Amino acid sequence: MSNFLFYFPDLSAREITLHEEESKHLIKVLRKTQGDLVQLVDGKGNLATASISKDHPKHCELLITSIQHKENPRPYQFSLAIAPTKNSDRIEWMLEKCVEIGLDELFLLETQNSERSKFNMDRLEKIAISAMKQSKQFYLPRIHAIQKFDSFLKQQAHWNCARFIAWVEAEKTSSLIKRLQANTKECTDILVLIGPEGDFAKQEVDQALKMGFDSVSLGQSILRTETAAIQSASWISGFFETKIIPKN
Amino acid sequence: MSNFLFYFPDLSAREITLHEEESKHLIKVLRKTQGDLVQLVDGKGNLATASISKDHPKHCELLITSIQHKENPRPYQFSLAIAPTKNSDRIEWMLEKCVEIGLDELFLLETQNSERSKFNMDRLEKIAISAMKQSKQFYLPRIHAIQKFDSFLKQQAHWNCARFIAWVEAEKTSSLIKRLQANTKECTDILVLIGPEGDFAKQEVDQALKMGFDSVSLGQSILRTETAAIQSASWISGFFETKIIPKN
Repeated sequence: MSNFLFYFPDLSAREITLHEEESKHLIKVLRKTQGDLVQLVDGKGNLATASISKDHPKHCELLITSIQHKENPRPYQFSLAIAPTKNSDRIEWMLEKCVEIGLDELFLLETQNSERSKFNMDRLEKIAISAMKQSKQFYLPRIHAIQKFDSFLKQQAHWNCARFIAWVEAEKTSSLIKRLQANTKECTDILVLIGPEGDFAKQEVDQALKMGFDSVSLGQSILRTETAAIQSASWISGFFETKIIPKN
Repeated sequence: MSNFLFYFPDLSAREITLHEEESKHLIKVLRKTQGDLVQLVDGKGNLATASISKDHPKHCELLITSIQHKENPRPYQFSLAIAPTKNSDRIEWMLEKCVEIGLDELFLLETQNSERSKFNMDRLEKIAISAMKQSKQFYLPRIHAIQKFDSFLKQQAHWNCARFIAWVEAEKTSSLIKRLQANTKECTDILVLIGPEGDFAKQEVDQALKMGFDSVSLGQSILRTETAAIQSASWISGFFETKIIPKN
């Protein structure tokens, strides 16, 4: 069986036809032929085994022989809300890294100091799928279309777990990892807001604080937007890896 | 005064001439002229204030008026030894992120499964300088030319602090962050080895273990080489941010 995972968003049918790119990879690159077995994920926790019934290089047909549901091995949910960087590469790279480390939901924000209010969502989706497959995961993060900061905040009124806003001037406040430790409610549902390159406007920070967000730093260094997002993902994963508590 | 930091490796003279790129940035991009003040770092902890004595766009001359020594704000030293990825972009990006988060020394390794044994060192140096300036730090990591895994290991025989080897099959062993917590000697000098895309050879892992390296995972996800390096930098920064100890 191929060591690669293939992606198909709906594994409920018995017979499926892979999309063009996945077909090409399976038949042209890996040179698999009729009867060979492959593994498929749907990004919703299902892992299927299928055999190639028609080895067409563009429309490869598969017959699903078995399917199993995988639990998400992460003991937490990480949602990230971020203002895209001017240079789209940086957000794409950030998404790849965050998916590898652990990401459940991505919100793209248009803020006062944003340098970009449009984004190629198809490309982001592809990057997320590729990173999920590469890191042998079974869950694809939900990626939401870019939206205004205000309307995002309003939607989050119901959020009943730990939520943080990381911004540059928060340097002197407590850090995200310390706040996670002090999180007495033992929340496992974490939302982090990361500002644009020009940082959040004071008014935006105030709005978030009023909504119950906790102002945090990401350590002593000044991090770029995309690095701040990766640091958040990594600190949260490290925190839950150890279930750490403060020394005093 | 400009908000940007400029780089000059030796701030011991009173009069200096900036390199071409830095001159261009200061005079052409920021449009500074004679008499304007700028701040310079040497990557060794010194921060100088200087005034422009000759605003030449290629060979800008400066007169240093004051200099101060800055302590490194990180309470630890992080050394990373990594086998470069086939795609050089990935290592360059990794270096930028690690410098932002905190990196003191970078060793590039040629291992059995390495896909690359040469690297543009000048480019790495430039990326490190740029990331140091961008994140307003005063220390530049030392970057060593690529060397064979064996000779690197031999040099490390004297290393008397915490040293780890992260490899894919280490998944089932304890994680780096848990090992840091269990580090009873309170070492603050941390060395982490990260393998190539094809992982370390079994023999290389054995060699490192024999030298006293501790085998660690970087969590439950399968991370790409460059992501593993960033996760190491980030976990170590998070660990020292909190000085965490295990719950039990």
